[in-house]
Amino acid sequence: MSFKEKLRLYVLTDRKLAPEIESVKAALEGGATAIQLRLKNVSTREILEVAKKLRELTRDYGALFFVNDHLDVALAVNADGVQLGPDDLPVSLAKKIAPHLIVGASVYSLEEALKAEQEGADYLGAGAVFPTETKSEAQVLGLDGLKKIVASVKIPVVAIGGINHENVLEVLKTGVCGIALVSAIMGATDITMATKKMKDLLNEHSI
Amino acid sequence: MSFKEKLRLYVLTDRKLAPEIESVKAALEGGATAIQLRLKNVSTREILEVAKKLRELTRDYGALFFVNDHLDVALAVNADGVQLGPDDLPVSLAKKIAPHLIVGASVYSLEEALKAEQEGADYLGAGAVFPTETKSEAQVLGLDGLKKIVASVKIPVVAIGGINHENVLEVLKTGVCGIALVSAIMGATDITMATKKMKDLLNEHSI
Ligand code: NI
Repeated sequence: MSFKEKLRLYVLTDRKLAPEIESVKAALEGGATAIQLRLKNVSTREILEVAKKLRELTRDYGALFFVNDHLDVALAVNADGVQLGPDDLPVSLAKKIAPHLIVGASVYSLEEALKAEQEGADYLGAGAVFPTETKSEAQVLGLDGLKKIVASVKIPVVAIGGINHENVLEVLKTGVCGIALVSAIMGATDITMATKKMKDLLNEHSI
Repeated sequence: MSFKEKLRLYVLTDRKLAPEIESVKAALEGGATAIQLRLKNVSTREILEVAKKLRELTRDYGALFFVNDHLDVALAVNADGVQLGPDDLPVSLAKKIAPHLIVGASVYSLEEALKAEQEGADYLGAGAVFPTETKSEAQVLGLDGLKKIVASVKIPVVAIGGINHENVLEVLKTGVCGIALVSAIMGATDITMATKKMKDLLNEHSI
């Protein structure tokens, strides 16, 4: 699978919804191709310990592994990459201190998308596509906003924010490379089944 | 000045006591030889922005600059080193991913001191020497505990925790390489003067 193909079914952790290790294992079992550890307000040591285990799991399943914000932890566990938003290290600095790491940029507008690409981001997490509770301050891009970003950058775009089994096909039509999911997977009673169903939808409607 | 000499008058930031930039400038003006940025519960971006400015200031004054916890920020601003405690990345991992960075370890017992030295720490911040409010969970080492650590490791030891102008001479007698200060400097009405007075005490009673 190419880098772009591995961005296709991208799942983020959410401790409020499910414990990281078990839920990631279940999502990988269901066919997730990339995992991002997003864990706030805990110590670096705790993030490191979880990241170590997720690195093992994702390696076993051949999935990409990204760490949100903490470039140091990403380096420490040999993650594939780091995901950076406006509150984190700038993309250009991250690229400078860790040139071999994949750097994903979380962008919330076309302007931010163009800036991130220029700074050297390897892919974009663009959103929120739909309103969401996970990112309260996030502006809603909408499908049109997303389509504009996809058309304006050369790097792969992963859509994020409020995507679920019902609306995913509309999102795919914008030309994104992959979709990133939080509650549609991590909030499901059966995480493996929810991931499998999403995977089937993606496979049936591959762009 | 050698590395050891630069550990002699080590000042830590404390936002609750004073804003970082102004207070560090004042401490450097008073003769601080090392500065540590310790800033919790704010975004990585905010830590980065403060760290950039402190890196400039410390460079101007020829002082060492350390970042607490955030190895990524330390790398991003070309800090001299990073200070790691039990909740942060392990020393051995930090040394592995950033071999050129000075790694200081915060230790609270002889056992932790020996472990940190074995893991490759370049110096120790050992405490708390006296009871303190800054580190509520910190056990008190006492002067005897500190003396034991100094006698047991080969790397430089900086004493921390409740040190002030009144008790600093007792601390120096333990054979430490330097003293680290928070409230005695950052809580002073005149930070430059408080640092100068401490510097004079250290100079008069050099070991
Ligand atoms: Ni960090």
